Parts: sequence; C-alpha cells; structure tokens
Amino acid sequence: MPTQTPQNYIVVGAGLGGAVMANYLAQAGHTVEVYEKRPDLRQADISAGRSINLALSVRGIHALKEIGVIDEVMKEAVPMPGRMMHGVDGELTYQPYGNKGEAIHSVSRGGLNCILLDAVEKHENVTTFFEHRCLDVDMDAPSATFESADGSTVTATGDAIIGTDGAFSAVRARMQRMERFNYSQDYLAHGYKELTIPPADGGGYRMEKNALHIWPRESFMTIALPNADGSYTVTCFWPYDGPYGFNRLKTDDDIEAFFNKWFPDAVPLMPDLLNDYKTNPVGSLVTVRCGPWNYRDKVALLGDAAHAIVPFYGQGMNCAFEDCTALNEALNRHPRDRAAAFESYYQARKENADAIADLAIQNFIEMRDKVADPAFLRKKKRQKLLRKLLPNWYIPPYEMVSFTRIPYAETIRRAMEQDRTIARVKYGAIAALLLIAAGTAWALS
Amino acid sequence: MPTQTPQNYIVVGAGLGGAVMANYLAQAGHTVEVYEKRPDLRQADISAGRSINLALSVRGIHALKEIGVIDEVMKEAVPMPGRMMHGVDGELTYQPYGNKGEAIHSVSRGGLNCILLDAVEKHENVTTFFEHRCLDVDMDAPSATFESADGSTVTATGDAIIGTDGAFSAVRARMQRMERFNYSQDYLAHGYKELTIPPADGGGYRMEKNALHIWPRESFMTIALPNADGSYTVTCFWPYDGPYGFNRLKTDDDIEAFFNKWFPDAVPLMPDLLNDYKTNPVGSLVTVRCGPWNYRDKVALLGDAAHAIVPFYGQGMNCAFEDCTALNEALNRHPRDRAAAFESYYQARKENADAIADLAIQNFIEMRDKVADPAFLRKKKRQKLLRKLLPNWYIPPYEMVSFTRIPYAETIRRAMEQDRTIARVKYGAIAALLLIAAGTAWALS
Repeated sequence: MPTQTPQNYIVVGAGLGGAVMANYLAQAGHTVEVYEKRPDLRQADISAGRSINLALSVRGIHALKEIGVIDEVMKEAVPMPGRMMHGVDGELTYQPYGNKGEAIHSVSRGGLNCILLDAVEKHENVTTFFEHRCLDVDMDAPSATFESADGSTVTATGDAIIGTDGAFSAVRARMQRMERFNYSQDYLAHGYKELTIPPADGGGYRMEKNALHIWPRESFMTIALPNADGSYTVTCFWPYDGPYGFNRLKTDDDIEAFFNKWFPDAVPLMPDLLNDYKTNPVGSLVTVRCGPWNYRDKVALLGDAAHAIVPFYGQGMNCAFEDCTALNEALNRHPRDRAAAFESYYQARKENADAIADLAIQNFIEMRDKVADPAFLRKKKRQKLLRKLLPNWYIPPYEMVSFTRIPYAETIRRAMEQDRTIARVKYGAIAALLLIAAGTAWALS
Repeated sequence: MPTQTPQNYIVVGAGLGGAVMANYLAQAGHTVEVYEKRPDLRQADISAGRSINLALSVRGIHALKEIGVIDEVMKEAVPMPGRMMHGVDGELTYQPYGNKGEAIHSVSRGGLNCILLDAVEKHENVTTFFEHRCLDVDMDAPSATFESADGSTVTATGDAIIGTDGAFSAVRARMQRMERFNYSQDYLAHGYKELTIPPADGGGYRMEKNALHIWPRESFMTIALPNADGSYTVTCFWPYDGPYGFNRLKTDDDIEAFFNKWFPDAVPLMPDLLNDYKTNPVGSLVTVRCGPWNYRDKVALLGDAAHAIVPFYGQGMNCAFEDCTALNEALNRHPRDRAAAFESYYQARKENADAIADLAIQNFIEMRDKVADPAFLRKKKRQKLLRKLLPNWYIPPYEMVSFTRIPYAETIRRAMEQDRTIARVKYGAIAALLLIAAGTAWALS
C-alpha cells in the first residue's frame, strides 16, 4: 500500500462516519484530533433510551473490515436475509433479499459507535474531545473553533479538516458562504416516529427474528428491525398531514383506533404503544445535496454532512462508510498531493451520492406500496430466476446496492442496460415466433 | 371584478417585480408601503452606468397592460422578431421567433423600473421608502425591520408582507429558518460579463436593429440586445474555467486574441472592448428553488425571491410579472381569505416556476450550441410549417413560452403531446405505406 505523508487532521464529528474516518486516518499514520458536540456515549446512560438500529450491508462491512472491527461488530448484529410483509389481515409474506447466505444486518447505532470509538482510541496518534460544539471554521488556516462543556472556546489548527458532523453540519454551513456553492435541502411530506416491541416475556423474539418487517399501506408504512436483545425498533413512516397523518391523531382513542385499523397484528406486541407514541417525537426526512465537498486541500466533507439521504434503502451509514473508504483510497493514490486527493474523492463520489439519494426516495415508494402488490412479487421472483440462470450477467438492482460494491450510479446504469437487453430479447423472440408462424402458414397454404 | 378587502401590505423590494405588485395592490385599494434597499434610481446618476436590457414578452406585457403602463413602456422598447446568428466567419443567419407581427421586446431595466415607480407613486395609498435594507422579518406579527440610510432602524407592521427582494432575498432567508422549508441553489459552471456596442458614429445601429444577436460557439456564447439609443448591451456567457473560460484570459493580449478568434465580426463594433472587459465584473448564474412561498396569510414571496432562474429563455422578468398577475387573481378569488389566496397562488405557480427554471437551463444549450446546427434550423422550419398548417393545434415550444400565456408547465406537457402525436402519425403513415406495398406485391404475385 502506498504511504500517506503524515499530517495533522481535525475531524469534526465523532458519529459513525467520523469515527470510521478517524480510524482510517490513524491507520495511515496521521495525527488526528476528533471533536464531538455530544457527550461520550460510552459514559452517558443510554440504557434508558430507545435502541436505534441500522441495516449494515456490504459497503459498510468492507470499511469495517479495513479498519479491523468487523468481527466485534458482527457479534451483536442480527442478520436479515429478507423482508417479512404484514398484511392488514395479519397475513405474512416473506421475500428473500438475495441468494442463500446473503443478508443485511441489523446493528445498534450506539453499540457500533462505541466499538468504533474504542478502536479510534487504541491508536496513540488520536485524541478525542467530547462536548465540543463547532462554532466556526477558518477555511484557509485551516482551523476550527469549538465551545467546550465549560463554556470556554478552543481553536484547533491542522493541515486539513474533515467535516463529518451530520445533516445539519456546521462545517458545511461555513462552506455554504463560499462563492457559487451548490446546495439543496428537500423534505418529504412524511416524517418518522420510533416505537418499541419489547422482547417476549421470558426472553426471545415476538416475531420472526431474521427479517426486516414491513407493514406496507400504500401511501404510508411502518417497519421493524430486530435488536440483539430480543426487542425490535419500530419506525412509523407516515405523512404529517392528511387522513393517514401524524397530525390527525390527537387523542388516545385516535391513536388506538388508527393502529387497530391499520396495524392490528402489531398492537398486541407493543404494551407501551400509547406512551411511546405520545412521548417520542416526529422526526423529519430530509435529502441534502451540495457541492463541492472540498475546499482546496484544506477542508473535505463526508457522510450526511455532504449528502443526507432518506433511510429507505438502508444506505445512509453504508454510503458514509464507503465515503471513508474512497477518501482513504484517494489519499493513497495522491500521497503527497492532498488537494488532488480531495478533488478526486469529490469527483468520484458526487454522482454516487446523488444516485443513492434518488434510489432511497424511489425505494420508499417500493417499500410502502409495491411490496404488497402480487405483480411486484412476481417481478422479484423473475429477477431471482434470471440471477440464477445468468449469474455473471444479471444482478437485481436491490442486490447490486446491498450485496456488491458496484458504485451506486453504476448500479442505476447497469439496471437500465439489463432491462433494455431483456426487452430486446423478449421482442426479438416474439418477432422470431411471428416469423416462424408466418413461414409455416405460407408453407401450408 | 370582485373586490378585495382593503388591507395594509408591506412590499419588500422595489425592483421590477415589487413595483408591479405594488401597482396591483394599490389598484385593488390596499394601503401599501414599499421598502427598497437601494437609492431611488430615478434620482441616482445612472447615465454613466451600463444600460442593462431585458426581453419583454407576452406574459410581462399582460401584467403591464393590467396596471396601465404598457403604452409608455412600449415607446422605448425595441422589437426583436427573431434571432440573428453570427458565425465565426462572420456569416449571418436570421431566424424569426414566431409568426409575422410577433416579437419579443428589448427594454431597459432601469427605464422600465422608473416607469413602474412613477406609476406606483401616482397611487395615494402607496408610500415608498428607499435606502431601507431589510434586516429581519417577524413572520407572525407580521412585521419587517429595516436599516435606513442614516443607520437608524425602522419597523413596519402590516397585515401581510410580500417578499420581492430578489435572488438573495432577506425575506426568504427568514423563511428558510422555518421547519421543513425546501430550498436549493444551483450555480452554472458559466458566468456572465456585460460589454457595450455603442451607437454608430453619427447615430444609428452598427448591426441589424430588430434582432437578438447570438454568437453561438457550442460550449459558450455571446449575445447582444439592442437599446433604444442605438447601442447594444453585449453579454458573454462563458465558463469560468477551461479553454474558453474567463479565468484563462489574464493579459490584454489574451483578451484580444480570444475575441479575434471567436468573435471577429464583433471586435470592430466595440471600441472600448479591452477597458469594458477588464472593468466589468463576472456575475454568477444561479437557479434558486424553494417552497412553500407563503407563511399562512402573513408572508408571500414572488419573483426571483421565490424562484431565481438563469436568463436564457428571457423569462425571469416575465415570470415575475406573471406571479404578480397570479397573486392578484388569487386575492380576487378569495377576497376575504388571504391565507387561501396565498396558498392557491403558491400551489398554482410552483410547478410553473420549476418548469421555466428547467426550460431556461435547456435553452442555454439550444442558444449556444444547437442554433448553429443546420439540422436544428431545419427542425425550426418544420415547426413553423406545422404551425401554419395546423394553427389551432400546433404551437412550437418557444412560441408557447414567449407569445402565449399558456402556463409554463403546460407548455412542456403540450410540447410532449404534440411530439408524440407527430411520431404516431409518422409511423402510422409508414405502416400504411408498407401495407399498401405488401398488398400490391401480393395482388401482382
């Protein structure tokens, strides 16, 4: 592997993306200071909170392998080899995501972050600072100023700053004041609210453990991902307004009636439903796009700070980890030219981030609406058959995204090419049959 | 006409859109306070400055008729019934925009704004304040705070605020802090720089007066619009970077060599070329989209503040004036429910603003690249022929946008429908010919 010239990096944000990037940078021999707004979650009392989980798939797994934490992460992960659809009548339909042995993995956001931070701190060349809120960035120095827990102000100066401070990034906010910075934020008409299905009395799971559960209801849906302790984190993706909207449910009766009507089989699994529903907030779902992601060799953005996406393809974390892999590779390719590394990282990743942002929005429609449609299920079966018959040529789009590291934008191009070829073969076959029929008719006439 | 209930409106921005809206509101009987950041351009010395001009077409003309200023505006307007393309070899190609009698009109931005402000101040129920910069907006009051020329702070409170303060709107900036506000800003890789072709010695025009002149050079272009005084305002739309970029031209020799190579017939028309080029700034070209455009019955945005677009369809001003017409109509339809009026104005205009933003970007490619292509010119001729043969059914897209008030989004849908029908007729005719040929062959066999 080429050797990166050791430098001083300031990483703003110690969430999942920041912690992975700090590991990559420390591994490459750089001196790294990591600043995080929140308290150290390894010391905070998180047991009382809800357990938020995420779907880890191949792109994320690859990064976790490269920084040497995958074995520990997988110990607590729950494999989800398919989707389990719940009809309004309680009927269950199971659909595998990929081939035998392929699965996405439900992991705890907090648990994973702890593992990543422990790994970061094993490197002697890393220092972590918690409860340091980024106030401003001097892009040219480059330096970042933080307010610490005691109210004092700290300025950190280095060779480069990595902004990995999430969808509402302070580093990006500073970059937005640059000339000709492209930026967009788009909110869905839907929000999300998290609920909990606790473990069964006496332990174990109250539903199929190894599946991502979906209650598709066309214009809205609820999903559940298993946790290692036997519980599920349930997420309602409903519109804010209208007949199926959060804002319509004002009384306990409203809430209970709505769940009984639309999710009757889930109600008995959630003894704290009413309290959870009324206590937990409704979060918004935003897609953020921007560009450029770097300022010369001084500042680079990654993860949600560069491209917040909606959660419906389970790729937000995986995409952020793939950013880290890509940035590390770019620094390896340009070991003595960080400007070139940042620039080529941005150029290579931008179209892929845009692609997964689009795919994630499209997949919301697929999850909430189409998965309940028999025609769609038949199409998925045809896709599986094609993959079995032509494994070297055909990969269904979902599997390209979740089970390969084919760049996101390339998965879209390849899916379109596959569809075009199938259409050509289909119409070619029909034409050939017609010709044969006409020839036969002529010969018999 | 229905009667709007008189109210107190605060209009932020007295540019073209603000002045037209203030006229509409005053006409409907409202009390209007208009606040403008810049000095009153009727008193400022603008003779030394460049004369910036704009293309006025049917949508804008309609609004100017409704507020009763069209005759005065048309006195100084220069009709442009077509495009004049300038080849690198100096060859001229003329292409009419529409049918006989149809033209877009070159008008002076400053001159038009003066006419509109004079008209505003003829209304007793309007007060104008210049050199009042908007600092903040209280969305709920609603009220707006301004810093006046002497540094003092003034707060204006009314029933509703109209934000018409341009692409970098202060009113919109305040709305961006609302929950779930959608926003995007996208810059082109091209910028623009304005130059001047002065009147001929002894008066008159140095080129064809009645045309919009284009020097299309595929990836970049220069254009010129005539002014009433015999001069032309020239605008270079070039990339910032690359072989045809502003940033590459560093010395006088660079500038002269570039113009001599790419715009040789324009060079002798611009005696002050070098000085103009070096003195005038490069402006950026941004598309801004956002939503919603209103906050309850308190605040509404219009014009560039709601949807800044690039200038290549000549519709920025026309679209802003059409916003004013639409908002006035919505207030007429809901004379006692301003919230409903604002909401229906936004719902009706949003898709049209998005459509013209897309069309304007597409038209840049058409203007700089395709207008020099013989196949494109033949296509335009076929469109004109179709319009003559089927005037009630076929209208070329450019003409729908410039010479009708068909909503922008509808022009796109209608153009697609026209194309589909033409394709169907074409392939239907081919199939019929083949059938006839086959039938004849069979009959003869």
